[in-house]
Amino acid sequence: MATISIPEYVPSASEDAEQLRKAFSGWGTNEKLIISILAHRSAAQRRQIRQAYADIFGEDLLKSLDKELTHDFEKVVLLWVLDSAERDAVLAYDSARKWGPGDRALIEIACARSSDELFAARRAYHARYKRSVEEDVAAHAKGDFRKLLVPLISAYRYEGPEVNQTLAKSEAKLLHEKIGDKSYADEEIIRILTTRSKAQLTATFNAYHNEFGNPINKDLKSDPKDHFLSALRAITKCITAPEKYFEKAIRLAINKVGTDEEAVTRVIATRAELDLKVIKDLYYKRNSVPLVRAIKKDTRGDYEDFLVALIGEESA
Amino acid sequence: MATISIPEYVPSASEDAEQLRKAFSGWGTNEKLIISILAHRSAAQRRQIRQAYADIFGEDLLKSLDKELTHDFEKVVLLWVLDSAERDAVLAYDSARKWGPGDRALIEIACARSSDELFAARRAYHARYKRSVEEDVAAHAKGDFRKLLVPLISAYRYEGPEVNQTLAKSEAKLLHEKIGDKSYADEEIIRILTTRSKAQLTATFNAYHNEFGNPINKDLKSDPKDHFLSALRAITKCITAPEKYFEKAIRLAINKVGTDEEAVTRVIATRAELDLKVIKDLYYKRNSVPLVRAIKKDTRGDYEDFLVALIGEESA
Repeated sequence: MATISIPEYVPSASEDAEQLRKAFSGWGTNEKLIISILAHRSAAQRRQIRQAYADIFGEDLLKSLDKELTHDFEKVVLLWVLDSAERDAVLAYDSARKWGPGDRALIEIACARSSDELFAARRAYHARYKRSVEEDVAAHAKGDFRKLLVPLISAYRYEGPEVNQTLAKSEAKLLHEKIGDKSYADEEIIRILTTRSKAQLTATFNAYHNEFGNPINKDLKSDPKDHFLSALRAITKCITAPEKYFEKAIRLAINKVGTDEEAVTRVIATRAELDLKVIKDLYYKRNSVPLVRAIKKDTRGDYEDFLVALIGEESA
Repeated sequence: MATISIPEYVPSASEDAEQLRKAFSGWGTNEKLIISILAHRSAAQRRQIRQAYADIFGEDLLKSLDKELTHDFEKVVLLWVLDSAERDAVLAYDSARKWGPGDRALIEIACARSSDELFAARRAYHARYKRSVEEDVAAHAKGDFRKLLVPLISAYRYEGPEVNQTLAKSEAKLLHEKIGDKSYADEEIIRILTTRSKAQLTATFNAYHNEFGNPINKDLKSDPKDHFLSALRAITKCITAPEKYFEKAIRLAINKVGTDEEAVTRVIATRAELDLKVIKDLYYKRNSVPLVRAIKKDTRGDYEDFLVALIGEESA
């Protein structure tokens, strides 16, 4: 469930575009006005506004926003205004180019989207960057991470509900053997995690838990500081329980000394129209503080206001 | 250029469907009638016939053909009647399941199709087999071949004409080093061949030739009997000169003791509507015998007649 609130009466796309243009003109930028429009429109409405803005003013709305806004506020607004496929392409590009072992955006895009959404992001990547996402990931990620991330981001997983229980058991056994040997980057582990359907993997992880007594993620925690293990855990989590994954991602981002704005921005901008309501509920359950209150405590100014508008107030 | 000939007056799809039904009924099957219809219709026309057949007789034309025909004739007709994406899915499935190091179908599908065609085949694979092609390839191919074929079949290469000459030079150097070390399955070789755009790879191979004196495929021939090297050569050939690749594929299939009907069928059925005219010309140039005459010499009966209908007679 989404958390954004759309007013009952929504102005036409060209009225919104005109208002935005007003917000950009004169002395200083009217951030409040920008927030009151863009944070309260659906993806389809934002697309129409962007189109209307281009038609009327002969400029891409993204370009105007880029000129007028700054810092974290700019980043979240730009991501938010993009189509979801373009947004994923931008996130993947930034991640691939400055890739580090703690990166999560690529894993989220590869594992917490549908197969067609992931493919749409790959297509948007072509259009925007004149190259393929797997090409950039392969050129920048290193060692075992490259072996893991390239097939992960190139996958087109089957999405049906069919499950092969015999296969689930045999692959659970295989995973358990490799994990027991601490061969975490073994090609069989990578093959299973990067090619099997989500339904099949869920069955495999259940078989693992039943057969060997522990959830697989517990066994993948032998060294909690190991980045590769942590990436494997993120993958299984994104596949089997994306809302829980995102609750944790945002919790860690908020609790980090200095706040990880990049992660906060990414999670809110990519989930606000999908399942942020569930993530909010999970957050409250886990932290005994409403997400919006935690965000208000850790962020400032227009950035704060925009995030709060996307998340919705406590009473909402 | 295509080689199939379509009559000036083409009956309606339902007339064709009725005629085919007639060909299946009574004493024995009327193969001549089947050939006269199916070998002389475009992909769009065949799709309409299949639809009309299902509407009128409540049965999939493929199923009827499967019941009525046998052996190589059956195989080529079934492949031919399928949509190109479905046809590639069927070829990829058969190859993945009985995978062997000499297999070429997966390489052809991954490298001699456009990125969108390859993706359409992956989508058709989901629909038909309830799993992904990369999943089956990863589960059946072994060792270095798996490392090569999984990213190859999962790629969504950028297709624009942009070329980075500096990158072409540096990757040509990298390829040359690895080939010099006989590290043919090195992950850098695999990364470059499986992720770069065809335009970029062409520039890289040109840089290789200019800088090091030999075409890359010559340097990949140190052991002509090595299957992995031969797969690498097939990949570079499919990417840079698909018609030449297919001329050679069909030449080897015909020259083989006993003829490799599977390869003949695959090449003719997948190229007849695309570039078989060019392949025919190259074949004649290279072998001083028209392709159709070579095919007539090596094949028999309805299978022969169907292939000849697709290739076109000598005078055509």
